[in-house]
Amino acid sequence: MNTNAPTRPVPYVPAKVLTVVKTAATRKTPTGTPARMVNLSVNETPLGPPREVIAAVERAAADVNRYADTACTDLRAAIAAVEGLDPARLICGNGSEELLDIVGRVYVRAGDDILFPDYSFLQFQIVADRLGAKAVTTPVHSDFTVDLDALAARVSTRTRLIFLASPNNPTGAVIPDAEIARFLSAIPPHITVVIDCAYCEFAPSISFARLVALADERPNVLLTRTMSKAYGLAACRIGWAYGAAEIIAAMNTMRGIGNVNGFAQAAAIAALGATSHLARVLDQAQQMRSYLEKSLSELGLRTVPCETNFCFAEVPPDSPASAAEITDFLAENGYLVRRNEDYGLPNWLRISVGLKPDMERVVALIAQRLEA
Amino acid sequence: MNTNAPTRPVPYVPAKVLTVVKTAATRKTPTGTPARMVNLSVNETPLGPPREVIAAVERAAADVNRYADTACTDLRAAIAAVEGLDPARLICGNGSEELLDIVGRVYVRAGDDILFPDYSFLQFQIVADRLGAKAVTTPVHSDFTVDLDALAARVSTRTRLIFLASPNNPTGAVIPDAEIARFLSAIPPHITVVIDCAYCEFAPSISFARLVALADERPNVLLTRTMSKAYGLAACRIGWAYGAAEIIAAMNTMRGIGNVNGFAQAAAIAALGATSHLARVLDQAQQMRSYLEKSLSELGLRTVPCETNFCFAEVPPDSPASAAEITDFLAENGYLVRRNEDYGLPNWLRISVGLKPDMERVVALIAQRLEA
Repeated sequence: MNTNAPTRPVPYVPAKVLTVVKTAATRKTPTGTPARMVNLSVNETPLGPPREVIAAVERAAADVNRYADTACTDLRAAIAAVEGLDPARLICGNGSEELLDIVGRVYVRAGDDILFPDYSFLQFQIVADRLGAKAVTTPVHSDFTVDLDALAARVSTRTRLIFLASPNNPTGAVIPDAEIARFLSAIPPHITVVIDCAYCEFAPSISFARLVALADERPNVLLTRTMSKAYGLAACRIGWAYGAAEIIAAMNTMRGIGNVNGFAQAAAIAALGATSHLARVLDQAQQMRSYLEKSLSELGLRTVPCETNFCFAEVPPDSPASAAEITDFLAENGYLVRRNEDYGLPNWLRISVGLKPDMERVVALIAQRLEA
Repeated sequence: MNTNAPTRPVPYVPAKVLTVVKTAATRKTPTGTPARMVNLSVNETPLGPPREVIAAVERAAADVNRYADTACTDLRAAIAAVEGLDPARLICGNGSEELLDIVGRVYVRAGDDILFPDYSFLQFQIVADRLGAKAVTTPVHSDFTVDLDALAARVSTRTRLIFLASPNNPTGAVIPDAEIARFLSAIPPHITVVIDCAYCEFAPSISFARLVALADERPNVLLTRTMSKAYGLAACRIGWAYGAAEIIAAMNTMRGIGNVNGFAQAAAIAALGATSHLARVLDQAQQMRSYLEKSLSELGLRTVPCETNFCFAEVPPDSPASAAEITDFLAENGYLVRRNEDYGLPNWLRISVGLKPDMERVVALIAQRLEA
């Protein structure tokens, strides 16, 4: 037995991940906040669940002592029916978070490169950090739209995985289908390309079916979706992914065997059938985002086009109140919005759509703080 | 851009994991089975949930559009209160499955050794395979009790992690506290030792508090628990772990940020308070395991002591029907029990405790098949 190493090894804990986890852990409990805190910082839908989802959850409760289907058979069938896909090429995850994590574990080793644009969904960086991979990022245009030529130019022999999000979080930027098609044709097939479509239901200019067609033509494309946003199931942790059979088979070996819990499966199947609720969520988000964008522009903030359920707005450097001051003032008055220092964008606010009275109050509070 | 690698890379998919996933995926849907299939193959409790759990789930449904607490603050507080622990040294997981996986990701690299006894919980092998680590196993005694001296003797400079389960699944074997204490004192502190206590509530001879005391004295011990078994929350995927602050902090960076879904958190808190239900589950399991062990012994099968909610029994080689034939006959008659070929134990059956009429029917069917 070796006894020459008496001290504990340094565990593998990248600092960036620690920061994110710490932020996430404290996000919901700011100290000294008002009793009623409306969370506009995590892009949940403000509409409560449809009765179909509640009924499904109540039915599932009777079987809580039984393991759920580890293959998510019924849920994959339901997704396949709605989206016109082959259920055998679908995988469900404990949130799309898990799916982004495991596609990294399948294809990337320590020292490899993962490539994605600046200001992308934070999970991309986290996946790289956890694997000891190098996150290589490329600049975006001044309106945060993705420069795919810059991205393609950074592909190297070390690149194993490319992450894209369309629409992206936090910037809301959409990548046109035609640009994605051209980009995919330029990427060699040994590199896996993941396109995260977490917000695609909100985006009139995105055709998910067109992305599916692009994936169907290629062995190296994975599309990821979530039911936390438009489908209103944030508490459930349901994500899914579609891609080549080989990618899905590999991911099935890396996911948690019982990764999707029984309530999540039942709620998701019900939510997929609640089409009028989905339409209401999308309509409400579109109206409130338009209202927010118009109102914030009138207050002198700069907004960028966001085909999502949030608004991304810059507080100009010469503004009477900084983004940080506005955020604090909103929190003091019961509204949590997201600051973006961790993205290197300290002047930018990401505000989720909420109910109309809350949106009006947020606009009024920002106006008040700017006048103070 | 490199275009000299036109083919897809071999994804990282160890064959063993594939087999396990395939087995798990198909376990619940055997073909040609009777309409009413009682699953005695995955060690669920046969008792339905207490009303507290159902009520908690129904309350949680109203907030399904909101993300659950990513830090499981209330759940960790509830566990801490029941077990007398510091909540800051607890971590919750999407099943203990996730926790066993991430402790591997934190401390083990490809090429390192993970050490555990033969016939251990399959997840230990899966964790090693996913990491590209070498699973080093040691023989157990003829009654499946663990030979900790053999285990300690296999520790090498490559050993980074040791997995133990007490009671173990599928063998039911318990490791006496005193032996664990002696073993831990022989293991250098740079090696992390995980003791999986998934079935410890069922084991009269195990003192979890004593294991906590052993962990408290050391920087390198992690205890894992699940609420899928005694607490009857298999559908929820709730596991938790306790250990040194450094281990927990590291694991928090590697777990899914939103790893435990809202229904799971609510149900788990309620289940921790439903103490009379827990007592009923434990009492029922003890009675039915005793009944099964006695009845199977009378039929000529060999049973080993199992302080769990299942019975582990060998069909003697000279028996009129093999374990495989008995399993098939039970399935044809509506009872799914677990065969153990994948453990290299083709003569052994693992039968979960069920309701009394089902236990009596299983015994009668086995008797019938042995007489055929």
